Amino acid sequence: MATNSRIVSIDVMKSFISNIMAKLDVNPSHAQCLAEVLVTGDYRGHFSHGLNRIELYIKDIQQGSCRKDGMPTILKETVATAWIDGNALLGPVVGKFCMELAIKKAKECGIGWVVAKGSNHFGIAGYYSMMALPHKLLVTYFQKIIVIFLMKLFSQKKGMSFTNASPLLAPTRSKEPFFGTNPISVSAPSSSKNDDFVLDMATSVVALGKVEIAHRKEEKIPNGWAIDKDGKTIDDPANYHALLPLGGPENSSGYKGYGLAALVEIFTSILGGSSVAPNVRNWTANHVEADLGQCFVAINPDCFAPGFDNRMTELANNLRSQKPADPDNPVLIHGDPERKHMQKCDHQGGIEYHINQIKMANKLAQQFEIEPLKTIDTD
Amino acid sequence: MATNSRIVSIDVMKSFISNIMAKLDVNPSHAQCLAEVLVTGDYRGHFSHGLNRIELYIKDIQQGSCRKDGMPTILKETVATAWIDGNALLGPVVGKFCMELAIKKAKECGIGWVVAKGSNHFGIAGYYSMMALPHKLLVTYFQKIIVIFLMKLFSQKKGMSFTNASPLLAPTRSKEPFFGTNPISVSAPSSSKNDDFVLDMATSVVALGKVEIAHRKEEKIPNGWAIDKDGKTIDDPANYHALLPLGGPENSSGYKGYGLAALVEIFTSILGGSSVAPNVRNWTANHVEADLGQCFVAINPDCFAPGFDNRMTELANNLRSQKPADPDNPVLIHGDPERKHMQKCDHQGGIEYHINQIKMANKLAQQFEIEPLKTIDTD
Repeated sequence: MATNSRIVSIDVMKSFISNIMAKLDVNPSHAQCLAEVLVTGDYRGHFSHGLNRIELYIKDIQQGSCRKDGMPTILKETVATAWIDGNALLGPVVGKFCMELAIKKAKECGIGWVVAKGSNHFGIAGYYSMMALPHKLLVTYFQKIIVIFLMKLFSQKKGMSFTNASPLLAPTRSKEPFFGTNPISVSAPSSSKNDDFVLDMATSVVALGKVEIAHRKEEKIPNGWAIDKDGKTIDDPANYHALLPLGGPENSSGYKGYGLAALVEIFTSILGGSSVAPNVRNWTANHVEADLGQCFVAINPDCFAPGFDNRMTELANNLRSQKPADPDNPVLIHGDPERKHMQKCDHQGGIEYHINQIKMANKLAQQFEIEPLKTIDTD
Repeated sequence: MATNSRIVSIDVMKSFISNIMAKLDVNPSHAQCLAEVLVTGDYRGHFSHGLNRIELYIKDIQQGSCRKDGMPTILKETVATAWIDGNALLGPVVGKFCMELAIKKAKECGIGWVVAKGSNHFGIAGYYSMMALPHKLLVTYFQKIIVIFLMKLFSQKKGMSFTNASPLLAPTRSKEPFFGTNPISVSAPSSSKNDDFVLDMATSVVALGKVEIAHRKEEKIPNGWAIDKDGKTIDDPANYHALLPLGGPENSSGYKGYGLAALVEIFTSILGGSSVAPNVRNWTANHVEADLGQCFVAINPDCFAPGFDNRMTELANNLRSQKPADPDNPVLIHGDPERKHMQKCDHQGGIEYHINQIKMANKLAQQFEIEPLKTIDTD
């Protein structure tokens, strides 16, 4: 273990988050739901979407844009679809409600397609798509999302703009950010837990965090990650103005990533009637309801060709046995890096956090008058 | 008009294709369906998927891997889903059957999710996703597809391999092609025909044709389009071995494009039980059934927030009015380039084909003893 990190057990971290939420008078089951999702993010190695974002949830609740209690409402429903009002509840509460409904519908008629408006930020998209794996369902998930924590880092750097925080991604040919990083997540069950496919990707080339890290290290970034305020691709992260869509510039098919970002926008805010890009609230505007749109789809493979699970496992094994260009970097399937991280956590008895994260958490503990984080003694 | 091109009216081109199919004893309605799809490809400016591919369909029919008559079979069905056997019929016949069924289901219960096995190549994916636009439905389409015509071009070039023709796309870190170019198409209706969103994209960085054209012109290609047989990215198209997925190399997030290619594979062959990558027939193996998997999804926006059409038009207008980096290249929405091409065709009274395409067609006319193509006199 690195000296600048500490290990915290999963249960301790969940209790810590629940305890803060209890001090804010959040419904205990909502608090538990948030803790579960955020700690799953960290456990899977997606630290940007875990404990890291706790302050956003706290501020939204404190300023009243996120509600502490209540339930999402079904506004319209068929056997296969539902349109939901998230009623500005915590994102994980809305997400879990919608995904459970989609799973129920998929069991009944093969497909459940659920779209929510009035939702909030809710951690890793993969959490929801993975909810269907134990049911042996195939799941797709789209969210119009805001990258929040990373923007905060940005605002501390000179020459970095943090106006127009919510839109990050510039459509091909545009010099202004328009879409969020609009992620897509798809999970598909296999015959072994180790072969489950879990894709969870932003439709931008990279997350803003990668540009930010390069800036901090005073390193160049590859041309094609981002543009300056004139719309030119940059290699100096100090000139950052907007991210490019997956594919990068137009000549390497960035218009495809732009199309995927638009697809996510259509499946979420346009279908659900929530706030549409580029008019999503600024990340600092915690008093304004985020009104995020989210789309959850569950698919029952039993309605199609028998043997889905086995074909998934075979596909995974086939891919992993492809000849790699570099023998030290074998071909992986989506979900493998996260499985590796979880194994490491299991071996260590908990999640390894950077010391700064622990310090931030213990400042919150002091502020909310709760127990500080108990770390695992590794001597 | 360029001197090395000729204009053919849409009706003349449709009759030409139907007449060849009639000589092959193909069911007249199947022949008409193929003609409609191929000519729509050309009309929209996607010449690689139109008349250009006629020889593939002819060979498949002549060698018995594609059947001349019959209907697809519904193997399993719920109110929202269907699993179809395409019975090795012409791709457009299977595609139209599936899409009509998905539309019917979406009208009834909000969603229609139809997966076919035993299908064949069927022209532009956008044709099927656009079928739902007049019904004001939102449509998604996935196909596991083979790039055929372009491989044929390849085989005429020195140093170009055309073995392993069907798999083209190398998973991240792999040095061998595995997936096809696995395209995704999504169409969404707006309140004006001019604002309809039509995305139709391969999940590789570029089509093989772009590498081929660069090779012919003895030009370099951008690093990140393709790899050589050692898995290294190339700038000399002569060293081509496989295409990279959208995003390119791993450091510019090619694993996202790889994930999207896998997603298409899962929604098509894994769900439908058809031939799975990398075991799709070689393009020259016209005697082997292609057994392609295809997935068609129709979504009824009426089941979600009212006002979908207007929000789509507003999104389109918002995007088009974004400040462009280069004032001569305004921001477009997906579907705009095709609309521009169709307007040009309408103005000219037909589709402008390269003279070599006309010559190829007239060789076929001679072979099948039908009328040669009547071109429009433009003097």
